Amino acid sequence: MNNTIITIGREYGSGGHEVGIKLAKKLNIPFYDKALTELLSEKSEFAQEFLEKNEEKVDILNLPIITGQTLIPDYQQSFSDKIFIDQSNLIKTLAQKGSCVFVGRCADYVLKDYNVINIFIYASLDSRIARKQKLLKENEGKDLEYSQMNKHIIKIDKMRKSYYEYYTDKKWGNKNSYDLCISTDKIGISGAVETISSFISSL
Amino acid sequence: MNNTIITIGREYGSGGHEVGIKLAKKLNIPFYDKALTELLSEKSEFAQEFLEKNEEKVDILNLPIITGQTLIPDYQQSFSDKIFIDQSNLIKTLAQKGSCVFVGRCADYVLKDYNVINIFIYASLDSRIARKQKLLKENEGKDLEYSQMNKHIIKIDKMRKSYYEYYTDKKWGNKNSYDLCISTDKIGISGAVETISSFISSL
Repeated sequence: MNNTIITIGREYGSGGHEVGIKLAKKLNIPFYDKALTELLSEKSEFAQEFLEKNEEKVDILNLPIITGQTLIPDYQQSFSDKIFIDQSNLIKTLAQKGSCVFVGRCADYVLKDYNVINIFIYASLDSRIARKQKLLKENEGKDLEYSQMNKHIIKIDKMRKSYYEYYTDKKWGNKNSYDLCISTDKIGISGAVETISSFISSL
Repeated sequence: MNNTIITIGREYGSGGHEVGIKLAKKLNIPFYDKALTELLSEKSEFAQEFLEKNEEKVDILNLPIITGQTLIPDYQQSFSDKIFIDQSNLIKTLAQKGSCVFVGRCADYVLKDYNVINIFIYASLDSRIARKQKLLKENEGKDLEYSQMNKHIIKIDKMRKSYYEYYTDKKWGNKNSYDLCISTDKIGISGAVETISSFISSL
């Protein structure tokens, strides 16, 4: 295999983002997450701050309301549609350049006609809550109690699922959408990186 | 980790059984599949042939019929219940002896209080059909056309799912029931064995 293009989907708090960073470092290839938003803001009409606020979110006006209609007429693109299209074009351009790691952004679906390895990282709700509580304390000195963090995690995952299933014909987090699904519960971030490396070496 | 106990769930035709055999060989530990049925027939009232015919099947009389009742009264154990209990006791006894690999038989659930690694092997329907057609030709010189093999595979998977979800509180083939889920589509049997080995080394 000449190019190694890896996409990583992840449950919030499972450490999927960190797995992506460390995997890219180990393989010495680019990692596109925040870097994608930076590049996108350079190429599109949207400011980076706006893109970061709206990444992996479906515009609520885009979703069907009670009558089965959306608030945006069919012929008019919503902001999230425009971002998705610009982002997808950028993902394809970067994938054509060579090996890299993408996290989220439906990259697996966008690159479905490319030779890509699709990974999903997950973990138990308990360990995700503990991980996010620890990170919040370390990075912002803040405490968030179990039940509040639980609600927050479930909300973010619901947004990711809605976004993924709105823009793709695949099921978010369902094994059939991926080549490899790894829980970080027992092996942690570095174990997941080693397991993915071994999977790639077997191709 | 002193003991390495691995359970493998698998979609029919994905090669999960072969992954189990090769993994056990690589790790130089016992593999329990047919061997489990042999041991069970020695220890129970059931003949090996009967056990093989009924392995991973729920007795139809056990399942609720239209009225919500089963044909077997609650106080009476069905054959499948008896086999499941004997088999579970045997699985626990073998797991206590040391490292080993179990395939199917809800071993992940039976050993839920043990330190166990739970794996699920899957593959696309197309590659499973092709694999089973090839094996049938090689082993029995028979041909089975695509649509017939498709039906057969779906039927076996439905039986496995019913059995698993009748005897456990987990979802068959859902990533949350396992530590690692691997598709054999791109990396094949040996690639899956290498990936599991790497996962285990990270523990």
